[in-house]
Order: sequence, then structure tokens, then C-alpha cells
Amino acid sequence: MYTKIVSVYGYGRFGKVWADILAENFHVKVYSRRGLKSEEVSPGIEIANKRSIYDCDALFFCVAISSFEEVLKKSSRHCNKGTVFFDTCSVKVFPAKWMKKYLPEGSTIIATHPMFGPDSYLQTERKLPIVMCNVNADQETIEEWAGYFKSKSLQIEIMTAEKHDQMTAYSQGITHYVGRVLADLDLHPTLIDTLGYHKVLEVIEQTCNDSWQLFLDLQNYNPYGKKMRESLRESVERVNSALQEESNDIEPHETINKDQKKGE
Amino acid sequence: MYTKIVSVYGYGRFGKVWADILAENFHVKVYSRRGLKSEEVSPGIEIANKRSIYDCDALFFCVAISSFEEVLKKSSRHCNKGTVFFDTCSVKVFPAKWMKKYLPEGSTIIATHPMFGPDSYLQTERKLPIVMCNVNADQETIEEWAGYFKSKSLQIEIMTAEKHDQMTAYSQGITHYVGRVLADLDLHPTLIDTLGYHKVLEVIEQTCNDSWQLFLDLQNYNPYGKKMRESLRESVERVNSALQEESNDIEPHETINKDQKKGE
Repeated sequence: MYTKIVSVYGYGRFGKVWADILAENFHVKVYSRRGLKSEEVSPGIEIANKRSIYDCDALFFCVAISSFEEVLKKSSRHCNKGTVFFDTCSVKVFPAKWMKKYLPEGSTIIATHPMFGPDSYLQTERKLPIVMCNVNADQETIEEWAGYFKSKSLQIEIMTAEKHDQMTAYSQGITHYVGRVLADLDLHPTLIDTLGYHKVLEVIEQTCNDSWQLFLDLQNYNPYGKKMRESLRESVERVNSALQEESNDIEPHETINKDQKKGE
Repeated sequence: MYTKIVSVYGYGRFGKVWADILAENFHVKVYSRRGLKSEEVSPGIEIANKRSIYDCDALFFCVAISSFEEVLKKSSRHCNKGTVFFDTCSVKVFPAKWMKKYLPEGSTIIATHPMFGPDSYLQTERKLPIVMCNVNADQETIEEWAGYFKSKSLQIEIMTAEKHDQMTAYSQGITHYVGRVLADLDLHPTLIDTLGYHKVLEVIEQTCNDSWQLFLDLQNYNPYGKKMRESLRESVERVNSALQEESNDIEPHETINKDQKKGE
């Protein structure tokens, strides 16, 4: 049986785990702009150079969202029409638009978002979702790759890039935003953690293990990110109003607060 | 051996679980201002009336923080000096002050905060903490009760009411605040949840299972609550500034946002 050659362009935290998964079934090539040493790459995986990485049946771009447009501009003239192109970015509207713009005309393009990272891939027993957005692919290719992802125990969700970004602004996007805000407060485990606080600390850990650049990109390159953060601000204001209203009736509290201010 | 009579005043979500725990070792009486039917109370537990509840060796007040001062005012003249008084409120500065003010002079008073609720008590394998603040008790009584709590597999933490409130503003307080703000956004599980978002949903569930009144009281009766919420607001602003700074460099994003506004 013919073994497909699958390239992974970009070898950061996600690229590495993704290459290892693909290598269970394909001949995998990897390339990173920073250069790769053989000891960082799992046995059996080929380290390609900036030309040979494009000679493949399928190519997964695993680069930072904010670098992707530049990578595509440089890749454009080296790409083969026969290759199926994927990105794996955590937002989809921009990457889908860029791939359509820069990859050779008529290329087969599927935008994907494997909804897990190196941490969650190892931690959970749940089926992990992968979103597929058909940018420019025939039904057969979509089904072939959906079948492959399914064989890796991933849960396939096919939707438009717009729908993806709208949904993830209010799930992944809000999670990372809250994680970073709480991390800024420098919270730590205490001797008297409640179970709920324990879960808050897990959210911080889970999100802050990823790079700061990923956080910025997740927020800024999601067209629904700004709206999400505005909605969150409105929720903060509603909760604060409810607290304020109630606290007006609390005489002793008001007194203590005044005392405290004097003492400060 | 003499079996201690221990009263639980207040039979809400926490009072019920606390009475059940105590009933494993003591003769337990319970009382609620709303009146109790025998079928709501576990077998072996006595339903007391508004007078007989005070005839006991130890009395645990398990009432809402915002009701506690009124309860103490009414209880005051019925309380026996020989009783050891405890509260179980989630804040400690106000309850400790109120107990000292309203309970008969010279009463033995220990403010406590069992750091768990009906949900977390059943859910976790971890040792659950209980905070004890010595308001007016001799060392022997403190040790006796600490020994009892230890025998129930609780982790004893002895500290001042001020220290407790300062610590919990930034653990339990922030957890409930974040949980309520996110609940206001009406977030739900989606088909493409990340593990981190799953934990966010758990925080919401964990905190919103408790009453809205507990939330208001936790924030408004913690002298450090306001400061915590201000710090959180400052963190939000710092994160937003970082996002803003970065997004100024993103030309395409700006364009899409403008397009979107036009389309709205």
C-alpha cells in the first residue's frame, strides 16, 4: 500500500504532538524556520529543509496565527497543486482567507482546528474535537481526511470558518482571556483552597502553559473576540451593580469600609 | 460515655450536610426558622423548637451571613453560658464581631469556616480544610474541637478572622465572582469544548449551585472583597492594554472589524 507523505510546517508545542500523531500512519516530514536537531524529533520522522517540505501529499501548517500570512507568502511559489493544504490555527476566518489568497489557484484547502494542545491531549479520556472548514476541497477529500481523523479517535465537526470563530470566541477565547486575567492577579494555591478555587487554578495553568503570542493571536485574530470581551465587561458591570445595590442596605459593612480607608 | 448534645441552628444546604456529619458522633438537634418536617431530617436527628435548640453542649449557627446578626440578637437571651458557640459562615470578620457582641458575656466562642459545601464534600478525595478562629475560647476547648474535626478527616487551619477574610477574598471570593460573571454570559457546553473551557464550565456550575444570597454576602461582608474586585478590574485593564497594543499592528484585523461594523 502506498504510504502518504505528510509534511508538518512549524514545530512548536502543537506541531510536535501533531507530527507524532500523523507519524503513526504516514511518512512524516517536519520543518521549522528555526532549524531542527535530530534529537528533538521522534524516531522515523524526517527533518526536511525549506524546499523539500513542500514535496508531499498533504501539508499541515502548524505556525503561530500571527506568522501564518508571512509563511504563506513565502511558501506560495514552492507549493505543489497536488498537495492537500491544512492549517491548524485556533482561529479560522483569517487563516482560511489567507490560504485561499496565497496558495496556488485551484489548490485543495481544508482549514482545521484540532481543539487540543500538548497538555489536554495527554490529560483527557474524552473524545477530542477537530473542526474542519472546507475552504476549497472536493467531498471525497473531505471524507477521506475526516475518516482519518476519526480513526485517531477525534470527533469531527464540520462548519464554516465564521461559525467556528463565533463559537470559540465564547469558549476557548473566553477561557484564555479569563486565565490570563487571573494569572495577572498572581493567584496561588493556599492552605484553604475550596474545590471551586482549585478549578480556577487549573484554568490558569491550562491556559498559561500556552505562549503569550498564542493568547494575543487568539483574541486579536478572532473577529468575534472584541465583542466577546465587551459582553464580558457588561456582565462584570451587571454583577457589580447587583452587589452595589445590596451593599447599600448593609450598614455595618459600610462602617468597616470607612474605618478601613481611614486606617490605610 | 457521655454523649454531647450538639445543636445546628439553620438547616439550609450546608446545615443539613453539617448536621449529618455531626450526627455520626453526637446527639444532634436541628432547628430552622422555616420549620422542619421529619422527612427532611436524617433518622436519629432531633427536631428542636426555638427554645430547646439552645439546650446543648455546643451550638453551630448555619445561617446566611446576612441573617446572622439578627439571629444572634434574638438568640442572645436564650443562650447558655456553658455552650460552646460556633458559626460556619464563609466570611469571618463580621460573624466573629457579632458573636462577641451578642452572645452572653464570657461565652466560649469559636468562629469556623468549613471550606466545603454539599457538592464538594461528596466530590473530592482531598482533605477538606476547616478554618478555626479563636474568638473567645480556652486552649483546651480549641484543641478538643480541633481533635474532633481532625477525626472527621478535615484539615485544621487556625488563624485570625482578618487573615481568613484576606485569604479567601482572593480564593473563594474570586472564584464565586468569576463564576457569577461567566454565568451572566450564559455560557454553555458546545460540541467543540476545549479542556480548559470544560474547567470554566465546572467553575460556573460549582459556584452557581450555591444561593445568590451567599454570593452577595460572600462579596459584601468580606472587608477585602471590594479591594479584590478592584485588583481584578486592574488586571482586566492590563490585559486589554496588551491586546490593544498588539492589535494596532494588525492591519487585516482592523479591516475586518470595520467591515463587520458596516454589515451590522
